[in-house]
Amino acid sequence: MKSVSIIDIIEKKIFKKKLVEINGWVRTKRNSKLGISFVDVYDGSCLQHIQVIAKKDLSNYKSDILRLTSGCSVKIFGVLKKSLKNSKIYELHATCIKVLGWIKDPGKYPISSKPHTLEYLRSFSHLRPRTNIIGSVSRIRNIIFQEVHNFLNKKGFIWVPSPIITSLNTEGSGEMFKVSTFDFKKIPLNKNKLINYRKDFFGKRTFLTVSGQLHIESYACSLSKVYTFGPTFRAENSNTSRHLAEFWMVEIEIAFAKLNDIILLAYNLLSNIFKKVLNKCLNDLIFLEKKLNINIIKKLKNFIEKKLIEVEYCEAIRILKNCEKNFRIQLKWGMDLSSEHERYLSDLYYKSHIVIKNYPKEIKAFYMRLNKDKKTVAAADILLPGIGEIIGGSEREDRLEYLDSMIKEKRLIHKNYEWYRDLRKYGTVPHSGFGLGIERLISYVTGLKNIRDVIPFPRSSKNASF
Amino acid sequence: MKSVSIIDIIEKKIFKKKLVEINGWVRTKRNSKLGISFVDVYDGSCLQHIQVIAKKDLSNYKSDILRLTSGCSVKIFGVLKKSLKNSKIYELHATCIKVLGWIKDPGKYPISSKPHTLEYLRSFSHLRPRTNIIGSVSRIRNIIFQEVHNFLNKKGFIWVPSPIITSLNTEGSGEMFKVSTFDFKKIPLNKNKLINYRKDFFGKRTFLTVSGQLHIESYACSLSKVYTFGPTFRAENSNTSRHLAEFWMVEIEIAFAKLNDIILLAYNLLSNIFKKVLNKCLNDLIFLEKKLNINIIKKLKNFIEKKLIEVEYCEAIRILKNCEKNFRIQLKWGMDLSSEHERYLSDLYYKSHIVIKNYPKEIKAFYMRLNKDKKTVAAADILLPGIGEIIGGSEREDRLEYLDSMIKEKRLIHKNYEWYRDLRKYGTVPHSGFGLGIERLISYVTGLKNIRDVIPFPRSSKNASF
Repeated sequence: MKSVSIIDIIEKKIFKKKLVEINGWVRTKRNSKLGISFVDVYDGSCLQHIQVIAKKDLSNYKSDILRLTSGCSVKIFGVLKKSLKNSKIYELHATCIKVLGWIKDPGKYPISSKPHTLEYLRSFSHLRPRTNIIGSVSRIRNIIFQEVHNFLNKKGFIWVPSPIITSLNTEGSGEMFKVSTFDFKKIPLNKNKLINYRKDFFGKRTFLTVSGQLHIESYACSLSKVYTFGPTFRAENSNTSRHLAEFWMVEIEIAFAKLNDIILLAYNLLSNIFKKVLNKCLNDLIFLEKKLNINIIKKLKNFIEKKLIEVEYCEAIRILKNCEKNFRIQLKWGMDLSSEHERYLSDLYYKSHIVIKNYPKEIKAFYMRLNKDKKTVAAADILLPGIGEIIGGSEREDRLEYLDSMIKEKRLIHKNYEWYRDLRKYGTVPHSGFGLGIERLISYVTGLKNIRDVIPFPRSSKNASF
Repeated sequence: MKSVSIIDIIEKKIFKKKLVEINGWVRTKRNSKLGISFVDVYDGSCLQHIQVIAKKDLSNYKSDILRLTSGCSVKIFGVLKKSLKNSKIYELHATCIKVLGWIKDPGKYPISSKPHTLEYLRSFSHLRPRTNIIGSVSRIRNIIFQEVHNFLNKKGFIWVPSPIITSLNTEGSGEMFKVSTFDFKKIPLNKNKLINYRKDFFGKRTFLTVSGQLHIESYACSLSKVYTFGPTFRAENSNTSRHLAEFWMVEIEIAFAKLNDIILLAYNLLSNIFKKVLNKCLNDLIFLEKKLNINIIKKLKNFIEKKLIEVEYCEAIRILKNCEKNFRIQLKWGMDLSSEHERYLSDLYYKSHIVIKNYPKEIKAFYMRLNKDKKTVAAADILLPGIGEIIGGSEREDRLEYLDSMIKEKRLIHKNYEWYRDLRKYGTVPHSGFGLGIERLISYVTGLKNIRDVIPFPRSSKNASF
């Protein structure tokens, strides 16, 4: 007999009164005085458990069933019957329960059935998916991930794996991780006492990528609609609840697209993700709402129902200058918005998701397309209330002479960008793209404020455990 | 007016005689003496181009159209009409052609319309997707990637991002890349003149992952069916056509599953991928068959129609010992099969895809489950004719005492595996999984023998260009 998933029982894909086999773990157990034990079993396929009715006539009732504790793994054969209390729910009346794995020393089991804080659970990254909360996050993350691929694939986008190990620093800034096979005790030097990178694995200095954008631009400039979705890295010592050293990012690049095209696509992408999560993970969302005492469902529906408000950077500066709030940093035109400014605009002023467009060229990356005013670039950041920037995108500079002057202006090493310049030398096309940090999005959707709770094994300064 | 993709015209999603806009690149151009130019335009959405008919009455016919060369980018407005030669094909009769980007110095354009070798194209990773062959590979790779996710998601698997940066060496062997933010000129030492890793970014030695298996086992032991799909790394100096320093791998882990369950799942996964590629990329496959003069379609159909042949390791050894072929390495029980042995079995002896089961424990990883004979482990390798091993999997040792003795036997550092041992201490379950290298699979499907041609920006010893 093939075992069934608990979600198939919950969603009534399994006929009642049929003998079934389930496999899972004990969430809780209660023994009645009448010689019946009620064992709640989960298998991770959904938030819900199934209640197993184990009677004393089971041969191992005393030896095993009475000894079961939270976390034990079990294989159960039984018959599904409607619950007497709630006819919409099935219970499993066990004919045989086999204990597959006990909990050694249950008193010391780190994930006992009592409540634990998220902070405590972070020390047990390998066991925390056994909790309801991390289980819910895992299922929501999966649906978000799948919907990114489905949405883009239906629209004709081609997934392109951009390289993780790179000899290029995309942004021309930001601390990067070095990748090497050098023996750190014997770093080879050349005649001039400089490090001899020729002797390293790749024969040159290499890093972990901070973005796959430049690489996939080359594919957009031949396949038209492409995206990369993989891990990216920042070696910043920011030990905040918003930063990770390793995080996943989807980056989208579209030939022949302008700024408004990508803003629309980005909005539709987020909207479709939220719809899918509401559709597929409603129980998980309801659980998180109760657990964290927050409003998620209304927030997601609000995004779907309400268009993005478009705000020019100039207008944003005007609003921030004229408001009565005292910011830590006094703003003027040409300065980047800090998160307190962004939060004021989306959380207080507009009370909505917004997109800020056309930033001064000085505060944006070299590859962004210069506008006709020669002062601003065609860039757009999408902000969500309560979380700030979630998406950053731009038109890319497709004119070789403008690109060259920006490479010079930003003091980048010209020869590193020869291949990137080729895309403009040979059949250049207008193109635009954006990036979306997945963990920040999961954090927004689940309401879990600390980003370390939404990635299975978080990496940050002084932390690469497991 | 919104532009349309060429695939939508080819697949007849666009009504004929409707005025349409397309954007793309010139593949080839031919001028007739009658003042008509035939411009073949592609946009990467499919292998096929569309033929654009440009007549001399276009205002920029002389100034632009006659000057067009292969690779120029164009925006074209026109009317779709059935070809006079073949009524199944639409041509675009241009009413307006705008040249978006010229080719600077066409004589020096690296991707001119003449044929290029794959080896030559490898020097132009950023431009080679403009060729038909790399375009086809890109579309096939995308379909393979999407089908992995679709297939697994439909079966209830949850995607879990395993960490890229790790402090653990999964296999207990194999050269790994170091990840560090140390200044290589000033590696900090402690009092004992040893490298002071506490001062490194993560406060310990860290590497790029070689496998996410151990990490996702922890999720399988709570969510039941999980997989990871991301980049993995090997710092091996193997400069062969089969090895990459950075490659993508899907790793699947299933609680309560035995060896035969994962063999069946692996076969079904491959089978579904091949079906989807045949369905979605038939034109690309036909093109590759002609271009490379090989048989792909028959090969893929053969796999779908014919079950895996199961071979015990013992039987494989017996066959290899008794065959008349002289191998470089003389085999005996207990030795690992080299690729020449594997090729003999799949290509010559069975002439089929096969799975070899139950290998001696000495040649397999510490985490594989010991069989009752105490000599072999429940491991399985799937081999494909012409390419060798494509999938490796096993039951995982779920018994703590057996796991501990293997950690000792393989001389691994016990304390590194404390968290992994916890999975056996607390509610352990039988579980099994396998890994599939995606580039090797793409190589099999496309018939491109050199693995550097199936990943956009290949990384290998002394090569991290772009």
